[in-house]
Amino acid sequence: MKKIKIGILGLGTVGGGVINILKTHKENFLRDQGVDIEIVQVASRSIEKARQLGVEDIFTTDGYELINNPEIDIIVELIGGTDIARDYIYAAIEAGKRVITANKAVMAQDFYELLEQSGTKGVELAFEASVGGGIPIIGALRNSLIGNRIESVLGIVNGTTNYMLSQMTQFGYDYNTVLQEAQELGYAEADPTADVGGYDAAAKIAILTTLAFNTEVVLSQVPTEGITRLTPLDIANAADMGYVIKLLAISNRTPEGIDMRVHPTMLPFDHALASVNGVFNAIFVVGDSVGETMFYGQGAGAGAAASAVVGDLIEVSQRIAFDITRPYIRFGTEQLPLKPANEVVLSYYLRLPVPDKVGVVAATATAFANQGVSINRMMQYPSTDESGIAELIYVTHPTREGDLKAVVAEIETSGILAAEAVLIRML
Amino acid sequence: MKKIKIGILGLGTVGGGVINILKTHKENFLRDQGVDIEIVQVASRSIEKARQLGVEDIFTTDGYELINNPEIDIIVELIGGTDIARDYIYAAIEAGKRVITANKAVMAQDFYELLEQSGTKGVELAFEASVGGGIPIIGALRNSLIGNRIESVLGIVNGTTNYMLSQMTQFGYDYNTVLQEAQELGYAEADPTADVGGYDAAAKIAILTTLAFNTEVVLSQVPTEGITRLTPLDIANAADMGYVIKLLAISNRTPEGIDMRVHPTMLPFDHALASVNGVFNAIFVVGDSVGETMFYGQGAGAGAAASAVVGDLIEVSQRIAFDITRPYIRFGTEQLPLKPANEVVLSYYLRLPVPDKVGVVAATATAFANQGVSINRMMQYPSTDESGIAELIYVTHPTREGDLKAVVAEIETSGILAAEAVLIRML
Repeated sequence: MKKIKIGILGLGTVGGGVINILKTHKENFLRDQGVDIEIVQVASRSIEKARQLGVEDIFTTDGYELINNPEIDIIVELIGGTDIARDYIYAAIEAGKRVITANKAVMAQDFYELLEQSGTKGVELAFEASVGGGIPIIGALRNSLIGNRIESVLGIVNGTTNYMLSQMTQFGYDYNTVLQEAQELGYAEADPTADVGGYDAAAKIAILTTLAFNTEVVLSQVPTEGITRLTPLDIANAADMGYVIKLLAISNRTPEGIDMRVHPTMLPFDHALASVNGVFNAIFVVGDSVGETMFYGQGAGAGAAASAVVGDLIEVSQRIAFDITRPYIRFGTEQLPLKPANEVVLSYYLRLPVPDKVGVVAATATAFANQGVSINRMMQYPSTDESGIAELIYVTHPTREGDLKAVVAEIETSGILAAEAVLIRML
Repeated sequence: MKKIKIGILGLGTVGGGVINILKTHKENFLRDQGVDIEIVQVASRSIEKARQLGVEDIFTTDGYELINNPEIDIIVELIGGTDIARDYIYAAIEAGKRVITANKAVMAQDFYELLEQSGTKGVELAFEASVGGGIPIIGALRNSLIGNRIESVLGIVNGTTNYMLSQMTQFGYDYNTVLQEAQELGYAEADPTADVGGYDAAAKIAILTTLAFNTEVVLSQVPTEGITRLTPLDIANAADMGYVIKLLAISNRTPEGIDMRVHPTMLPFDHALASVNGVFNAIFVVGDSVGETMFYGQGAGAGAAASAVVGDLIEVSQRIAFDITRPYIRFGTEQLPLKPANEVVLSYYLRLPVPDKVGVVAATATAFANQGVSINRMMQYPSTDESGIAELIYVTHPTREGDLKAVVAEIETSGILAAEAVLIRML
């Protein structure tokens, strides 16, 4: 039986998890799946990780050694990011290697180029681990749900921010406290921008949109807002109204095109995603035949993503071992337009930090009137410290986003705001 | 391009759903999946359904006409049950046809024979729709999660009983009222035994156990209890203690073997499955790498199951169209023992209908003492009608099931019971 020889780029948590699974389950994979997988080379920045994982004898710092190693059938890219990892993926495909990656940033940016290049080269590119950790959502969209016209994909796809928002909701902590806690627990990176800024979630919804709607989108097209400006007051106000705040990745089919975005969202308590807490991810998919489905699981951690990588690895290894043709799948054939963010109609929660003085309510309320935006609720909270800054909250009736933004612009222009306005969309 | 020619056995809700999807999405399947699927013949008991679906010109009452039709590549069996449907499946494989089925009863009974026969004949047998309606759980266990040692599978896998229990919980209705309602809505059949008796759920957990634990089990090995004896009092008592009653299909890996069973179960309110209501299904899977995952969706209805059937159909059609080898997967290689039901240790809720007279509490409590079973809670509810039958409720500390059953046997033997004892396990 032909041994399947693989090289692993990146020995972080996911790389370690993959090595661990392949060690533990090697005999089972051989017996039940018919594949004998051998790790022949690994690459990482330092040998320390390789030593800890017991793979220092096959270690190199140069990823191109793996890519140029004629013995290697499959390159497993687990470095992440769009710099060297992206170069490695392109080079590996160019060298005729099959590639398995967990890299959402690269997939969200270079999806079509990579699919086309791998198609030309006749090699596979598998990326189940790029979205939702161990949740098999890519496989579901590519295979099991293929008979559906997908209407909607709604997901909590970033474990870091979901953990932070869960802690803020449960314990009333403020943003900086939960960020520090998340960093101490290893849930957030030293530079948390990709997570808290919503960019990680944006990359994932770009990939999901591509697959679910069979259209061509990339990361830079996703209107994205993060969670950095949320306060305990916003969380408490949401709870008062029967909502919980989640960072949602959204993609809806509409008559005007795909409505795709990432932002903090108020979800009613009884929504299926409202009770998804901590580092868990969940992706809610609505199809014309299947109706509502939801996929739930750990979005982060060594084991979850490694599980998805190994799932891909077995499948690709079987294709090599049994000389199985790649099935024909064409992406991006729909070429749907994107619905402009300004045309979305939602209810909005708007928090305005204002000086506690005469005329601010009138001035802000006038801006709503001028733009024809109807107010559903209004609250004012006095300053809780010596800043003298009060918080003015407006909740609108369903409103065209462009009109709401005009309200915010008018208020900003008036110079009345003591700090940036905070906008939260309501589902 | 080679047309993929299929025959459909059974024109019920699922058959109609499949015909509808193939009609609606035909061009997309051709363009994006590279398969041109044509329904060349359909079989059903009467031509009426065929007329409604506009397929009367390719209709026959004799399923063997499809099986013996040399033009047909794939037989889609959507009749259900173990009588004629089972014969058709065997005959189709024997005739060298690929088979796609939604038939859990046959798969739970004849899994290994069918897999072996289809292996010998070199044809595929696909059965995603047999468990969980449109939820892609079979695909997840066979592919994406294959890198895991599965520890536990817990599922709400029967939509009928979940609807009934949800209605009993939400509105306090009694069993007969919700059964009649479910029948009127088409959620329960005229003879509801397969659903309310737990046999449908048992078939599904047998299939899931086979796949998740890679061991050989069949339907007849699943200890099964249905929901027929549950009363509003049981539901209310559960709620008082912070539990909701669900019909669970359970399969756990334990040091003594697989602990597999189907029965009404009290689940804590905050369990992920506790909020799965109505006809929805959800399957909770724990793997050593992936951790906790859950798959949620509609378990019944034309669309959900048809979505799963079409997912299989595209995959099998691609194998034909692109001359793709079947991957090698071996089932049942673990041959794990089953843990005897009597050795399971749980807390139990026991309701004893007793005559409201002196000595019954003492007599029943003595039985617990005799068997060394420790009581955690005890309640007595007076008779609410002229029957004079009181309800005595015992909740135990964690207890070996064999000991609890000895308690029940002792009480039954004493002749004190006015009706059958009701036992509900607690998670």
